[in-house]
Amino acid sequence: MPEDRYAPLREIMATSGLDAVALVPGPNFQRLFAKSFHINERSLVVVVPKSGPPAAVVPSLEAASFDLIEFEGAVHLWRDHDGPGDAFMALGRDLTRGRIGVARIGVEGQYMRVMDQFGLQSAFPGAAFADLQKVISNTLRLRKTGEEIARLKRAIAISEDALTATLNEVRAGQSEVDVEGILLRNLFSCGAEGLAFEPIVAAADNSYRPHAKARRDYEIKPGDALLLDFGAIYDNYLADITRTVFVEHCPDGARAFYETVREANRVGRQAARPGVTAHQVDDAVQNVLEASPYAEFVRTKTGHGLGLDVHEDPYIMRGNHEVLEPGMVFTVEPGLYDPSGIGVRIEDDVLITGDGAETLTHFDRGIRLVG
Amino acid sequence: MPEDRYAPLREIMATSGLDAVALVPGPNFQRLFAKSFHINERSLVVVVPKSGPPAAVVPSLEAASFDLIEFEGAVHLWRDHDGPGDAFMALGRDLTRGRIGVARIGVEGQYMRVMDQFGLQSAFPGAAFADLQKVISNTLRLRKTGEEIARLKRAIAISEDALTATLNEVRAGQSEVDVEGILLRNLFSCGAEGLAFEPIVAAADNSYRPHAKARRDYEIKPGDALLLDFGAIYDNYLADITRTVFVEHCPDGARAFYETVREANRVGRQAARPGVTAHQVDDAVQNVLEASPYAEFVRTKTGHGLGLDVHEDPYIMRGNHEVLEPGMVFTVEPGLYDPSGIGVRIEDDVLITGDGAETLTHFDRGIRLVG
Repeated sequence: MPEDRYAPLREIMATSGLDAVALVPGPNFQRLFAKSFHINERSLVVVVPKSGPPAAVVPSLEAASFDLIEFEGAVHLWRDHDGPGDAFMALGRDLTRGRIGVARIGVEGQYMRVMDQFGLQSAFPGAAFADLQKVISNTLRLRKTGEEIARLKRAIAISEDALTATLNEVRAGQSEVDVEGILLRNLFSCGAEGLAFEPIVAAADNSYRPHAKARRDYEIKPGDALLLDFGAIYDNYLADITRTVFVEHCPDGARAFYETVREANRVGRQAARPGVTAHQVDDAVQNVLEASPYAEFVRTKTGHGLGLDVHEDPYIMRGNHEVLEPGMVFTVEPGLYDPSGIGVRIEDDVLITGDGAETLTHFDRGIRLVG
Repeated sequence: MPEDRYAPLREIMATSGLDAVALVPGPNFQRLFAKSFHINERSLVVVVPKSGPPAAVVPSLEAASFDLIEFEGAVHLWRDHDGPGDAFMALGRDLTRGRIGVARIGVEGQYMRVMDQFGLQSAFPGAAFADLQKVISNTLRLRKTGEEIARLKRAIAISEDALTATLNEVRAGQSEVDVEGILLRNLFSCGAEGLAFEPIVAAADNSYRPHAKARRDYEIKPGDALLLDFGAIYDNYLADITRTVFVEHCPDGARAFYETVREANRVGRQAARPGVTAHQVDDAVQNVLEASPYAEFVRTKTGHGLGLDVHEDPYIMRGNHEVLEPGMVFTVEPGLYDPSGIGVRIEDDVLITGDGAETLTHFDRGIRLVG
């Protein structure tokens, strides 16, 4: 446990004029405390004031697990049949006793649930809440360390092994749910410790929905595009890869469509390097797609950061003028989505290095026939 | 699509004095719209006013998927590089135009994230928010239909098949992470479509943490208790089962400890029937544990409801005087957790029937040696 583990948060508070920051289990919590929790319906909130020890509201069921993080402040336990109300009030008294009142609290708007904010509002009447999701996440997690990158690489290797095994098993006549089952089995056989997100397995007209759900009632047919978008978790770090393959044969009209996406993917990975902005990478990718005959089928930006969360900064999109720096990891995932029946996406994970970029995913990007 | 799908929500609004209810993707959304979404950092919120058509804020990326729910109202799309702010404002104008203002909004406190509430607050300045999690969830999901029960049974069967296969593969010398990997592989081989939650695989001193994380650095030893708590998802419905086994042999001191938990489990399942309260079931279970020599090692209530969410009403605990009714499904999962090195939990899933209860899980509860 580093003695100054709250130093980055206190810098944020000083800069943003906050009296406290509240964290809930999730990627930032994991990075700060090296621990995650199954919380479900239960409130677990850590509040770090701008000075002095932190305090926490913790379900009593989690007390033994919470002990492992060597927390420096008061832990206000609550039991299921009491609910968290009293624990929140005790935390409020604890942090305001003999100190300046807590008037402005930074929270992680994407991770904190409304019930936890209601708890904090009771504990700190009159306090205002500011969504500091971005600055907290980026301070703690934007630039990956060598250890983090090693874990990401392992998560990617597991994912690619699973993809190889899965594509060897795909056959016409299977449903998307069948293929998803094969993929999941292979992921865990290959060493996945969890899923970065619910995999997307989408064929034919379903493939044009960027976040399609696998169907049980559609039989995959020869000539279908089949899009697989998924990722393993290894030691809390997430992979994210997409490949689009064709069942038995690639229809004539689909070949140029596919190759356009592949070229956009190549250009995007090539554009990525330190000093370039996220905007510039997306712009390079979109220019390829927009100059093609398929410009009307663009639906998405180029990509998103990847690490302990599956979508995080840097978001690779036009208008985002944040400068890429060594240690950032993000996806390059151009796609084209034609509602008349085909979607193609090719997604790689890219690390910004000292003098360029390393593509961490290696799975072949050429047209692949399966079944 | 039933014409009156919002009728249950409108009854809630009338009873609770609300002008609108806001829903986000999750179990209630799934039950109402038969659809789930990968949303991550993106806001997707449906607002149902007390009268007139609903409206939604939807990421443009999800537009094609959202079309599938045959939504009756205005859809305010937003694109990544714009953010959701304008879409929330348009939704606010849409719902307040020519109508009474929206002053009180019910939300699902456990599912809605703070960023979405901030979006709604901008859309409806001055509106108050009420956490209607419990009433919304219970209105839509507390009593399961025959179709829902069939899906739960299938999720349970998959989970039990996976447990059988896994226990045959466990050996002393493996780590908890190894066993978790075996379990995950078997789950997906047996037909799981997802995980109800990150499985708990905990041996020896880790087993006394009710929500332990699997360790990579501990080798399972003969005589260890090994606790496995997990569940498959099938067609969006979740199983939840725990068994605690012993590696090669059961230490003498552990036998009576185990049998105490087993008796509490039996008593709890026997106590469950229509007309009995959740309090009474927990009380029967706790009485067994508290009358034993291990009373000090009680940490948890008896159980929780199960369905589209892994923890939902009815919560089986003292002080909860809600009456059990046919169609309710919940866990009976007594445990004893001795910090000196052993935890035992035996968890079954129970359905309240017309005249009693049906235990949906069937895996043997006797002392089981593995390895």
